[in-house]
Amino acid sequence: MRAKNYELKPGAQDGITAVKEQDQSTRLSPARRQGKAGAQVAEVSGKALGRMVEAFMKLPGIGRKSAERLAFAVLGMQREEAAGIAQAILDLKNNTRYCTRCNNITEDEVCVICRDEKRDRSRICVVEEPSNILILEKTGSFRGCYHALMGAISPLDGIGPDDLRIDGLMERLKPGGIKEVIIATNPTVKGETTALYLSQLIKPLGIAVSRIAYGLPVGGDIEYADESTVQRALEGRREM
Amino acid sequence: MRAKNYELKPGAQDGITAVKEQDQSTRLSPARRQGKAGAQVAEVSGKALGRMVEAFMKLPGIGRKSAERLAFAVLGMQREEAAGIAQAILDLKNNTRYCTRCNNITEDEVCVICRDEKRDRSRICVVEEPSNILILEKTGSFRGCYHALMGAISPLDGIGPDDLRIDGLMERLKPGGIKEVIIATNPTVKGETTALYLSQLIKPLGIAVSRIAYGLPVGGDIEYADESTVQRALEGRREM
Repeated sequence: MRAKNYELKPGAQDGITAVKEQDQSTRLSPARRQGKAGAQVAEVSGKALGRMVEAFMKLPGIGRKSAERLAFAVLGMQREEAAGIAQAILDLKNNTRYCTRCNNITEDEVCVICRDEKRDRSRICVVEEPSNILILEKTGSFRGCYHALMGAISPLDGIGPDDLRIDGLMERLKPGGIKEVIIATNPTVKGETTALYLSQLIKPLGIAVSRIAYGLPVGGDIEYADESTVQRALEGRREM
Repeated sequence: MRAKNYELKPGAQDGITAVKEQDQSTRLSPARRQGKAGAQVAEVSGKALGRMVEAFMKLPGIGRKSAERLAFAVLGMQREEAAGIAQAILDLKNNTRYCTRCNNITEDEVCVICRDEKRDRSRICVVEEPSNILILEKTGSFRGCYHALMGAISPLDGIGPDDLRIDGLMERLKPGGIKEVIIATNPTVKGETTALYLSQLIKPLGIAVSRIAYGLPVGGDIEYADESTVQRALEGRREM
């Protein structure tokens, strides 16, 4: 449909003031900005909504606009559904912990993967974070066990090998029977440093150490790949 | 740093199976997919994390990956901080309601804008949703009052004028003293239909009815604007 061409009558802008000067919010720290965003919402739509916006802004990747959108979404939900989300948050904090063997997320002392007798216990895949285990499991192509280091070596951040769960990994390798350690730390300087450190530590034990492959992402376009990735993809080429 | 060129030993792929065939999840309904995503997480990382992922997936714009990222973020939070988010959700549902006059979000019977005696009560800006009020307030350039219709006319969805809070708006116009109604419904077919309907209803009362302007978004690039927008921008040109 075509809309009518509404013309503002003279004087129709009486109640309208000029665009305000950019306020100083961009100079504030994130925490201050967060408080400010919540305060602004609270001013217009009530304190509870303001607090909800501030709460959502504590989550990673959720900025001011997303937080507002999410807050209004919660507001529009059935009461039970909203209460369900609140309960899920509380349950998550109360019921979960890290597997005493591999540091995976679990609700028991030892995680479901470490307990599974069908898994290949002779291969351990080492990752930085417990969340990485989930990503690898989704591929469905690895049937061994895992070990989360709970971080990566990063001298600049003051994180050395002793700050990671490397002792626990070495304990697991000691009894023997481990054929391979696959290092799946991130393809970053930190992850690479960690991988190198681990390989120097583990190889003397006579255990094969491998590193996940670099290369072009599936579905990616070679035109958009950075030079180092293309270089690694070339180096890692396989016969067809 | 340069990484070493790790070469897989023959047999190092023993524990690795071929990439699984694409499963049928893409054919499932969103609800089924949601349950499936939660179930997969629950399998690897415990039921509480699975439920958290499912809970986050109920929010708009939060897909499976984002939900997982958020769930792990909550897991990594201090207990009080996570509890704070849960409490904010419960408070939001328990403490907020719609303003009896303009349908804005409020914690009282009448919202802060309707109560503010400094606002220009002779101008009412009509919006579709209460959340739109917040957006307009942020501009700081409107000092009148608002009215949220709680939707827009949409015959295809079976939503007619009687399903909206139009009666409440007309009640507010009746006593007189209103100089202008600014219609700020969305620039969509639904919003346009609603605007047209309202203008036909309100104009006979001798009240000026205006519609917010169409045009290029500030900071936008004319090259990326669609034809209708450019056309509207031309029609709405103003002398410089």
